[in-house]
Amino acid sequence: MNTSTIAPTNQNTQDTRALRVSGSRLWQSLMDLAKIGGTPKGGVCRLALTELDGQGRDLFSKWALDAGCTIRVDAIGNIFARRAGADDTLPPVMTGSHIDTQPTGGKFDGNYGVLAGIEVMRTLNDAGIRTRAPLEVVVWTNEEGSRFVPVMMGSGVFVGAFTLEHALGQQDAEGVCVRDALKQIGYAGEGDAAHPVGAYFEAHIEQGPVLENHEKVVGVVQAALGQRWYDVTVQGMEAHAGPTPMELRKDALLASSTLIAEVNRIALDRKPHARGTVGFLEVFPNSRNVIPGRVKFSVDLRAPDDAQLTDMDADIRAACERIAKESGTSINIEQVVYFPPQPFAPSLVEAVRRNAQDMGYSTMDCVSGAGHDAVYVARVAPAAMIFVPCADGISHNEIEDAEPEHLEAGCNVLLRAMLDSAGIAQ
Amino acid sequence: MNTSTIAPTNQNTQDTRALRVSGSRLWQSLMDLAKIGGTPKGGVCRLALTELDGQGRDLFSKWALDAGCTIRVDAIGNIFARRAGADDTLPPVMTGSHIDTQPTGGKFDGNYGVLAGIEVMRTLNDAGIRTRAPLEVVVWTNEEGSRFVPVMMGSGVFVGAFTLEHALGQQDAEGVCVRDALKQIGYAGEGDAAHPVGAYFEAHIEQGPVLENHEKVVGVVQAALGQRWYDVTVQGMEAHAGPTPMELRKDALLASSTLIAEVNRIALDRKPHARGTVGFLEVFPNSRNVIPGRVKFSVDLRAPDDAQLTDMDADIRAACERIAKESGTSINIEQVVYFPPQPFAPSLVEAVRRNAQDMGYSTMDCVSGAGHDAVYVARVAPAAMIFVPCADGISHNEIEDAEPEHLEAGCNVLLRAMLDSAGIAQ
Repeated sequence: MNTSTIAPTNQNTQDTRALRVSGSRLWQSLMDLAKIGGTPKGGVCRLALTELDGQGRDLFSKWALDAGCTIRVDAIGNIFARRAGADDTLPPVMTGSHIDTQPTGGKFDGNYGVLAGIEVMRTLNDAGIRTRAPLEVVVWTNEEGSRFVPVMMGSGVFVGAFTLEHALGQQDAEGVCVRDALKQIGYAGEGDAAHPVGAYFEAHIEQGPVLENHEKVVGVVQAALGQRWYDVTVQGMEAHAGPTPMELRKDALLASSTLIAEVNRIALDRKPHARGTVGFLEVFPNSRNVIPGRVKFSVDLRAPDDAQLTDMDADIRAACERIAKESGTSINIEQVVYFPPQPFAPSLVEAVRRNAQDMGYSTMDCVSGAGHDAVYVARVAPAAMIFVPCADGISHNEIEDAEPEHLEAGCNVLLRAMLDSAGIAQ
Repeated sequence: MNTSTIAPTNQNTQDTRALRVSGSRLWQSLMDLAKIGGTPKGGVCRLALTELDGQGRDLFSKWALDAGCTIRVDAIGNIFARRAGADDTLPPVMTGSHIDTQPTGGKFDGNYGVLAGIEVMRTLNDAGIRTRAPLEVVVWTNEEGSRFVPVMMGSGVFVGAFTLEHALGQQDAEGVCVRDALKQIGYAGEGDAAHPVGAYFEAHIEQGPVLENHEKVVGVVQAALGQRWYDVTVQGMEAHAGPTPMELRKDALLASSTLIAEVNRIALDRKPHARGTVGFLEVFPNSRNVIPGRVKFSVDLRAPDDAQLTDMDADIRAACERIAKESGTSINIEQVVYFPPQPFAPSLVEAVRRNAQDMGYSTMDCVSGAGHDAVYVARVAPAAMIFVPCADGISHNEIEDAEPEHLEAGCNVLLRAMLDSAGIAQ
């Protein structure tokens, strides 16, 4: 796919500068969609390509058709709802996200980005505004990866991160493959709908605590962190805790503890954006009075640029070597996942910031620590993200929550940024 | 029970100074007993009060009767094999250990101490030596605690650490109680066989690497380490590893790692005998890209004297408080087990050292880090232990191994030390 861009026009007239989305309509749509798969605890369980996901897609499609869009579905089930522009030879200015959820997910993760796109369309319809380039709202298939891996499947196929065939063949825990699940719910489209994108914006709840912590409304996302994931095994010597003096031990958990502290230090040394996490750890034999003979754990390193991430990789490998020597253990470290850092397009990032500030919203530069469809799209088109706060930074949880006025603010920024990119037909 | 002692007599004549046990006979008895419950991998599985344990007890009893002993079984199934002395009003000089094993146990743990006692009897019979005080070889019931808890059940009842009724009522995983299991194998004795003990010696494989590491043959055991066991829970804040910056985290595993390093330091600061171990640890939710919200782990602190152990307790509690504050977590620490340190009787310890050195064996002062029946017996009678090396310090394992000449050496020391305590009838 060719990367195609159009220059921002900044042609908002005085009229469009006063334009605002309807926060209450956006909220109502979020609440209506959340009923499909709604859980007693107020969350949503709508796994990718289930019957419930099909119902959610149907509702989205209805709303898009009602807003005058035409709909195409590609072979991996991505839905593109297009609002014609004055010059439909231009690549579309696209927005969207996903509507599949985690098993105990919330109402906002993904859904917000999709329905903010619908709200932009509705607002433009109400104001009778025609853009120069066409607009598109996209629903990407299976972003969460809860039922089928890999995660971000629809956008991954769209940008060629992996093949359509690979994705269609993936099976869930019951052995149902993506190909059959798509047919089952009526969203097996035809052909490769990959097409040039003029600009891509994705509005999303932050899924972290930074905006809330700094009391900011709009997060101007500079980049998505690169990720290196590792499996580490520390092999020591299992022994009885009583008779074995400290100096004769090869304690695999003690060595692991030192390494966990190093993972933390490696990230802390690269403030504010680098991350280092050990989330998974298992001890063998895991008995109260036995010195651990073996410990397995994960390491997750993230950084906004690849040179930094490469440095961190060198640091963790050096730490493994040093700590193995000091502790008399052997330490094996193996990289199992690599996502390169993905900077967003400076002109679009600037459009997000400028429009947010112009409307009086407080802003903050930030990074995306998690993966999003926008991270894949940014490989083939200029892309940017708009973050809004979520309560206590909590996501992937039924108690996920967000303030209506924050969602409205992010949607207004999305509206203005899309207009900047698409231009107004005179 | 009254603690009753007799003064050591040191009356070994030139004849008895030349007296030696038969290492090959001792080894043969060990191998014969090991056939009962022997495993394909060369270990032994003979859980307490099973039919196999009954067969082992029968073989012991036969050997004891063959050696001219009289046998009594008490209500918890301890077997006392007595060789009459010249003055049977004197309290017996006792030795022994246990013959129950771990599910994947070895041939030597416990069995050595019992059969070394039998070998002492046989050696005295061959030499026609009559002691002043009577001698006893005891088989303590259920030292291992693999089938029934508490561990060291027979010696615990003997010294009143807990009641007979409590012990008899304990059930295994299938709901069989100790009382019924004893009847089943014919070892439910009558009445409380607790009786004054003049001196108690227990020969045992070290179950640790110290003697082997220092190339010594006889460990002169000064004391058994006191133990404090704790359950620790660190409560942090579960969060997504990507979007959560390092400075806003409350990482329960990172805080736990710092505490694990402290446990180690607290013990290292009190060389050479103190121990600090975290053997068990569980992470919640234990997912690769989620910052751990909660970690539970065990802490096992051991020290040879109670003042030191109390200091260590204060240190670990202070560390919990400090680390909780630094990490923004809350840390709960609860002591779940306390065994006081148990010094052994200086005169008996000295007898072990003197006799070992007199016979030209290399010796080393050491401590018992693990629990043994001798640790309970030491509460009511002068007691001491004799350690011999085991291969690579490994025990509670089918590959447990020991050198015949080391086992013979320990048995010779046992013979001489028992003669010192019991005296020779002129």
